Amino acid sequence: MVMTIPQRILVAPSGFKESLDAVEVAAAISAGIRRVIPGVSINAVPMADGGEGTAAALASATGGKIVRTRVTGPVGRTVDSHFAVLGRAERPTAVVEMAAAAGLRLVPADMRDPGATTTRGVGELISAALDQGAERIVVGCGDSGTSDGGAGALRALGVKIFDRNGNDLPDGGAALAQAGHVDFSGLDPRLSACRLELALNPYNVLCGPQGVARVFGPQKGATPDQVEELSRGLDNWARLLAEATGTSEDYLRNGPGTGASGGLGAGLAAVGGWLVPRFELLLDSGLAGIDLDTDIANADLVVTAEGAIDFQTPRGKVPAEVARRAQRAGVPVLAFAGSIGKDAADVHAAGIDAIAGIIPIPMDLKRAVAEGAMLLEEATERTFRVLLLGSAISSRVAAAAA
Amino acid sequence: MVMTIPQRILVAPSGFKESLDAVEVAAAISAGIRRVIPGVSINAVPMADGGEGTAAALASATGGKIVRTRVTGPVGRTVDSHFAVLGRAERPTAVVEMAAAAGLRLVPADMRDPGATTTRGVGELISAALDQGAERIVVGCGDSGTSDGGAGALRALGVKIFDRNGNDLPDGGAALAQAGHVDFSGLDPRLSACRLELALNPYNVLCGPQGVARVFGPQKGATPDQVEELSRGLDNWARLLAEATGTSEDYLRNGPGTGASGGLGAGLAAVGGWLVPRFELLLDSGLAGIDLDTDIANADLVVTAEGAIDFQTPRGKVPAEVARRAQRAGVPVLAFAGSIGKDAADVHAAGIDAIAGIIPIPMDLKRAVAEGAMLLEEATERTFRVLLLGSAISSRVAAAAA
Repeated sequence: MVMTIPQRILVAPSGFKESLDAVEVAAAISAGIRRVIPGVSINAVPMADGGEGTAAALASATGGKIVRTRVTGPVGRTVDSHFAVLGRAERPTAVVEMAAAAGLRLVPADMRDPGATTTRGVGELISAALDQGAERIVVGCGDSGTSDGGAGALRALGVKIFDRNGNDLPDGGAALAQAGHVDFSGLDPRLSACRLELALNPYNVLCGPQGVARVFGPQKGATPDQVEELSRGLDNWARLLAEATGTSEDYLRNGPGTGASGGLGAGLAAVGGWLVPRFELLLDSGLAGIDLDTDIANADLVVTAEGAIDFQTPRGKVPAEVARRAQRAGVPVLAFAGSIGKDAADVHAAGIDAIAGIIPIPMDLKRAVAEGAMLLEEATERTFRVLLLGSAISSRVAAAAA
Repeated sequence: MVMTIPQRILVAPSGFKESLDAVEVAAAISAGIRRVIPGVSINAVPMADGGEGTAAALASATGGKIVRTRVTGPVGRTVDSHFAVLGRAERPTAVVEMAAAAGLRLVPADMRDPGATTTRGVGELISAALDQGAERIVVGCGDSGTSDGGAGALRALGVKIFDRNGNDLPDGGAALAQAGHVDFSGLDPRLSACRLELALNPYNVLCGPQGVARVFGPQKGATPDQVEELSRGLDNWARLLAEATGTSEDYLRNGPGTGASGGLGAGLAAVGGWLVPRFELLLDSGLAGIDLDTDIANADLVVTAEGAIDFQTPRGKVPAEVARRAQRAGVPVLAFAGSIGKDAADVHAAGIDAIAGIIPIPMDLKRAVAEGAMLLEEATERTFRVLLLGSAISSRVAAAAA
């Protein structure tokens, strides 16, 4: 009988937020597969998505280095931060991970007020990268704890923002509704000689019913009233940025990715930043040293994963992007998730053939997070036994029909 | 291309204790399968295991009836109970479900003291079945809340038990260590004209390191000290029963099933009851109106299930019995479990090819129990997508190799 089990498996997962990074997820899945198919060839390709871990992953993949520095954190306190200087780049290239200066994880749980947090540290990281001679700066967006439209980052780069009475505006998204004038005359001149690119999820827009305050405000800690206040502030902010820079207001409001990282996309677009779909930048440009399409073409099966799979997954998340490419190549896709949420079955339309959870018994989130690696490895074993069972039945039914 | 997905599926599950009965489990699994394979032929055979629901299942399967009555419950209070009178039986046959008179569910959570609970009500049900003219009585064992060695049941049938000073012994397993003499002279004479059979798990023995007090005492609420006290009591009880009836003491201590339902097996064996492996009685004798082996032979795949799958599953639980028969017929087996516990992978050696959990996200037991049917249906859908993915990969890999 012909061997009919997958021999070459590509494991291309995201990290499980607050539990495992993408490298650990790939390792657990690979170990689980090997329990069931001992001789299998596994190609493990942990996926960077612009969020936490992106700078480290790209420094490692290109033989570059991590530069450590201290910047203003999202709640105003100084925090340890870092950016990457890539190796093997055509011109001096830095990768700034916005989450390393203004990530949700840097906001203490009792201070989760997205009206108050600032992206100042992101501007400080860009400035530090310019100090290192960077001529290309990639800003990875994702896992942000801010909703200030990038106002803080612009300030750190020399922009001044005033209220309607001509006074300095306070930091944070809540104040943006009171902004009256933005002055770009002090903008760091080095930016004009540097290509600034944002790696972001193009599904995130700044304003409107799917605007960033409404979609992500609640998970950053905003009350319904705050969501509306933030929305009004970002409307006002888009108008002022357009007035001051000549950038299209419609683009700043609705352009793909303008809402990324609490509107950081719009803020940096106003100073000439390129908003690039993150997987195009991270995968297709070769920036991450990965050739995912070739890896997919060489696989019998692609396994991906993310901490949660739900209705948001098709909107630009790692498993959906992996599945989109695999579907194009005609390679089937299995996705693992720590949590299978609302409307998870929507992902089948996005090219994910099957999804599998990792929770074996009723347990709380804390335990699931703490035991993530073991749960994922054991769930992978169980799921691959089901997969091989399907293969065996297939042979059996075909033989009976022949 | 030849269709290579399972077309004929046998669904033969147990119930999920405290959540779904076997009929409900079979319905949820069937609905989940149909979401993925719309035209599939499903044969749903809910499995009775001697425990809760057995009398109702057998009455229904044979066109018999349920007789309602009131008996002494496990903590001494009167409880509503019932037994079945089977239809289409060669001679008048009753099915007494011990859990309907002395089940764990009838013991209030704050009174879970297996040293105090009694099987009196089981004897009362047997007596009521004799009143109805039963010439064959099958006692379904399982889900018990007692550890009295069947002493209460024997008393209800006319046996007297004294302590070493000749006083009546109190009810319950804790007192058995003080028992000095058992008098069978008052035993209901109708029992001699009736075939008494116990449907039980033959892995349960009365005494020794794998004795019923040690294996099941803790889950019935016994402390470590109580476990030892109950073990000593059952040792003494086996000796006295052997002395009084001439039954082999070694058989009463170690015979297959003597430990069933807290030692009810040994108690009724002493009065001529036949201890029969439950699936032999429920399946092979035709008692339940099921021909499982034929059903298996007509299937491409067997799906079974139980509330928990763990190290105990191979010791005579429904999924293991179904798998044993399926393995003999060369038909693959998939098992669902509400909870996948310690050493669950041991079941692969017992012929279960793959297991799948039902919990999609971290949640507590209460929610899992309340939403059991929906969780099981959705998990079945997800698992069958993995199964079909295995089938598709099989075809793909085979085509590439050809």
